[in-house]
Amino acid sequence: VRLAVTGANGFIGRAVAQHLREIGFAGEVRLIDRAFEGEPAFQAVRADLTNTDEVAGTVGNADCVIHLAALPGAAAEDDPAASRRINLDLSLDLIELMEGRRIVCAGSVAVFGSDFPQRVDRSTPPRPDTVYGTHKHMVELGYADAVRRGKLSGFMLRLPGVIARPRAAQGFGSAFLSDVFHAAREGKPFTLPLAPDATTWLMSVKACAANLVHAALSPGSAGEALTLPALTVRIGDLVDELARSGDVSGISFEEVPRMRRAFGSHPPLDATEAEGLGFRSDGKLASLVQAARANASERSPTSAGSSAPGGRQSAIGMEGDD
Amino acid sequence: VRLAVTGANGFIGRAVAQHLREIGFAGEVRLIDRAFEGEPAFQAVRADLTNTDEVAGTVGNADCVIHLAALPGAAAEDDPAASRRINLDLSLDLIELMEGRRIVCAGSVAVFGSDFPQRVDRSTPPRPDTVYGTHKHMVELGYADAVRRGKLSGFMLRLPGVIARPRAAQGFGSAFLSDVFHAAREGKPFTLPLAPDATTWLMSVKACAANLVHAALSPGSAGEALTLPALTVRIGDLVDELARSGDVSGISFEEVPRMRRAFGSHPPLDATEAEGLGFRSDGKLASLVQAARANASERSPTSAGSSAPGGRQSAIGMEGDD
Repeated sequence: VRLAVTGANGFIGRAVAQHLREIGFAGEVRLIDRAFEGEPAFQAVRADLTNTDEVAGTVGNADCVIHLAALPGAAAEDDPAASRRINLDLSLDLIELMEGRRIVCAGSVAVFGSDFPQRVDRSTPPRPDTVYGTHKHMVELGYADAVRRGKLSGFMLRLPGVIARPRAAQGFGSAFLSDVFHAAREGKPFTLPLAPDATTWLMSVKACAANLVHAALSPGSAGEALTLPALTVRIGDLVDELARSGDVSGISFEEVPRMRRAFGSHPPLDATEAEGLGFRSDGKLASLVQAARANASERSPTSAGSSAPGGRQSAIGMEGDD
Repeated sequence: VRLAVTGANGFIGRAVAQHLREIGFAGEVRLIDRAFEGEPAFQAVRADLTNTDEVAGTVGNADCVIHLAALPGAAAEDDPAASRRINLDLSLDLIELMEGRRIVCAGSVAVFGSDFPQRVDRSTPPRPDTVYGTHKHMVELGYADAVRRGKLSGFMLRLPGVIARPRAAQGFGSAFLSDVFHAAREGKPFTLPLAPDATTWLMSVKACAANLVHAALSPGSAGEALTLPALTVRIGDLVDELARSGDVSGISFEEVPRMRRAFGSHPPLDATEAEGLGFRSDGKLASLVQAARANASERSPTSAGSSAPGGRQSAIGMEGDD
């Protein structure tokens, strides 16, 4: 099996490469991004992700593409035209390009918008209310149609909040969900924009990477986008769990209504269908926090793709969950 | 008010121009299409509708665009890449281009797919299952997002089956709903691919044009796509009504399951919201049939955009309802 990974230098992309190493993946892996930092785990190829011909060239004869490249949510809202190029057009181009092959597209729970029903399951209709969620849902539709026409197989997976990102990840409205890990580790002051009773869907980057690789290597396929089985976490419980191994005395809560709607109002999630296809949550809050803590401590601020120079553009090539 | 109409040489576009004449519209009107037949009712400008710069140039300083240009359903299914250019990209380009102005987009009930609930109202989630319906729903999402961001105003109207099209309109799966009018007028044999108890949403092109012009000239606006208040017509009732003024002795029924799903399974439609905004159905079946009959008899086969030479490509510039 030959794999290609777009946005491979991003937070989740690097975790995917690491996971492929850990499972001793014996096939070919081609990592694609605008730039690479450190020593990539597999063959790394630079490409301008807004240039379809260039992306097509780098994807080459891959049997499966794991498509992570994205302009994250807050950055997409600032620049809808750039979001159209990266989050919509590039994805539709790859869906056309991979005809007869396999694709795994990183989707987002942002497709649900911020007006949630009592519970979310496979029948919940997406109602995006952001540029990012809108473009991700448009890709879901294009992907589903290509699968319906028998043009390709694969999965489109709606990612929840993925933690713990590098400190102060740019362009992500949900960066605070990762930054609180850095604050707890260092015992520094940090103000969460959510009240303790807010609830949010979370997954460790380790579990997320495992799910993406499972989607690429399993024989399964689904036309409808699947919401990954995230844990629905109370913010107060998250901080309590962080207190077991860190110093949370500097952490306070100052709820911002806009953040509550977007990231703190997630209802119970029924991901039975995704679980039946082998996708997994972190299991328990303690496991989630442990995995995210390990991840938070292994990264220095400068190793993050999102903190590379170049301002907003640096977010291109990252993959997003908000 | 300066209006521009894309796909203006198509069946619905010509009816829009005629309606503007009839109401004595005093503003500027610019008709845009790849080619024009006969004597256009207003200033006519040719443009390659796959070339955004060219379209932008022809739209010029219009205060409102009525965007009808489309590759119809059956043609879109045959050539998804062309549908992406015409039905998706061009529409998204126009939505960007019209920032600060007004747009009326021709949508389609094709966004609902063919698996209908007991009744359709504003809360019914689209579930497209064709290339055409998929692209139209993607445009709905892009349009709604632009309105949410305060970038433009207007309407996206889901058109039902619009009758009576010119004979044997190419690229339209629902062409039979118009062809039955031509057959009845001429007393010729015709086989309907639906049983008498099939139900389908219909609107005369005259009512459709009036609704599109109302959408352009009224001060209202809606971010969510609106399903126009079509009549839900039993096929048997339609033929009975045709018998009042034509010869239906040659008309027979041979149901094709695929056609039943796509065009003959429409449930009752609640279009209260659209009605509240001033959009209107034909009222009664007799009025619908009378309007469609008048329309069917005034056109010769060769006056139709869809029967122009050039095969599938000739459908570009037509506007679609299926």
